[in-house]
Amino acid sequence: MIGIDVGGANVKVATDSAVHTLYCPLWKGAPLRDILSRYRDEGRDGAAVVMSGELADCFSSKDEGIAWIVRTVRDVFPGALFYGTDGRFHDSPAPALAAANWFAAAVYLHSSYPGGLLVDMGSTTTDIVPLSSPGSLRGLTDLARLQKGYLLYTGLLRTPVPAVIRNVPIHGIQTPVSSEYFATSADAHLVLGHICAEEYTCDTPDGQGKDRDSCLRRLARIVCADLSEIGEQGAVAIAAAFWETQREMVRAAVQKVQQVSGADPVIAAGTGSRLLVPLLGARDLACDIGDAASALPAHAVREVMRRDLTW
Amino acid sequence: MIGIDVGGANVKVATDSAVHTLYCPLWKGAPLRDILSRYRDEGRDGAAVVMSGELADCFSSKDEGIAWIVRTVRDVFPGALFYGTDGRFHDSPAPALAAANWFAAAVYLHSSYPGGLLVDMGSTTTDIVPLSSPGSLRGLTDLARLQKGYLLYTGLLRTPVPAVIRNVPIHGIQTPVSSEYFATSADAHLVLGHICAEEYTCDTPDGQGKDRDSCLRRLARIVCADLSEIGEQGAVAIAAAFWETQREMVRAAVQKVQQVSGADPVIAAGTGSRLLVPLLGARDLACDIGDAASALPAHAVREVMRRDLTW
Repeated sequence: MIGIDVGGANVKVATDSAVHTLYCPLWKGAPLRDILSRYRDEGRDGAAVVMSGELADCFSSKDEGIAWIVRTVRDVFPGALFYGTDGRFHDSPAPALAAANWFAAAVYLHSSYPGGLLVDMGSTTTDIVPLSSPGSLRGLTDLARLQKGYLLYTGLLRTPVPAVIRNVPIHGIQTPVSSEYFATSADAHLVLGHICAEEYTCDTPDGQGKDRDSCLRRLARIVCADLSEIGEQGAVAIAAAFWETQREMVRAAVQKVQQVSGADPVIAAGTGSRLLVPLLGARDLACDIGDAASALPAHAVREVMRRDLTW
Repeated sequence: MIGIDVGGANVKVATDSAVHTLYCPLWKGAPLRDILSRYRDEGRDGAAVVMSGELADCFSSKDEGIAWIVRTVRDVFPGALFYGTDGRFHDSPAPALAAANWFAAAVYLHSSYPGGLLVDMGSTTTDIVPLSSPGSLRGLTDLARLQKGYLLYTGLLRTPVPAVIRNVPIHGIQTPVSSEYFATSADAHLVLGHICAEEYTCDTPDGQGKDRDSCLRRLARIVCADLSEIGEQGAVAIAAAFWETQREMVRAAVQKVQQVSGADPVIAAGTGSRLLVPLLGARDLACDIGDAASALPAHAVREVMRRDLTW
């Protein structure tokens, strides 16, 4: 049996033996069908699917996105079933399929961590899911989750720098940043040593390398400068300022949800868990379920189907 | 004689009879040479050039960008001369050519508006140039202008919404925005009636239409919603919140420069001047020089060459 999470930028696949995260930017016309076809054998005895890629702006509406994803996945796995925020599996498009990936994770984890708070930081977003109040989670849309603080639109790789910081100190002078898509969180985290080049799995903003020098160059451009103008020290300062602000955004959002929900302890998952564990004093889900924690919803929806979990 | 301003996103051309703004995104490999070739006749008796496109991230450094732009322009206009922030024309690449377009505008205007403050809002950025202190402007880089508040990286068309607002009230509920490149200032300004579809001259984020409905849809996606989820009222609220914040950014930046420099009155130029005039109580440069005010640096560098203006 296979578990699949079709995001806008990545598709994640969970099989008996492993999880895989594959860069698959739907808005650029990435070949989702071809990527899934590699796993045809693993899905012969069932495919459980969640999605969030319906929000990609190659679709004029979520309904259109859901229909396309269902059709494309079913082309490869004809018996695939799609999990919704209504807690049910569907064999055809339904509004409840929009962004149900975090919900599958919640259903999977709630019995192991009763009352805990799941914080799952991926490449693009951070899901904050109180496992203590199941009833209140059912049917939540992305819009509702933004408003409740359960969806924080910041991530390890794909967050544009100007979406997080407006100013950065360069050699002691506060400097406003450009609003161009010159550098992302991946550039900052690579420069800070939080990820290596192999973990920089999305495209670079300028199509250039994922080496440290290329990241430093992209960061320098954020203040309209060549790297030679601000030096490595200046570019590292941009990375540090970015992470300082991003970190506080995550910390504040988690605290707010904890205050309202009383959820505790914090369970960290996703490719960003390495940052969440020290930041939040969180338990690393990978200690309990291994690599599957890096692609949690894909693993979770597979388990929900396999073990017929309900909430 | 022709005046040319090679930006990263647009090339502007000023001839005897008219100015033209042509969308030419260098980082997407736009055919600058082909676009300029249409004006070969107008440039037979000279071509005066400024640039800011050397910052585009298809170039690994400003030097590389300057060299490419000089070479490409000279392929079409072999005698072209390039104006620098050193106040000189160059016939070959030089560091002073980086982002000298605003400087040509300042040299052109300073005698007509002694002591005034030029505010030139384009598609991407807003230049704030005190005409009262010429000496202090020479040689300023984009980095230095950011730090002095002379370069505000916000514009009429190309500014991503999340680079300006972090939250927006949707039906009375404060809602954080997505950090994705889902909608831009052009979407907001079109919805607010500040520009029409023909003035939306850059690409749309999703490659879809420039009609009002498409703009509303893009704005809704900023809070991860379909337009049907938040309604037209919700999408218009996003546009309004965007402009309210963008407006205050511009107003505050202009005030700060005025306080330091004492420059007065404010002269508004660029495609955004329609917004600046009521916002700042500014004089519209178009009242004095007509359409040329919408592509000021291209017109200005032509005048600097033609009339041998100096500062």
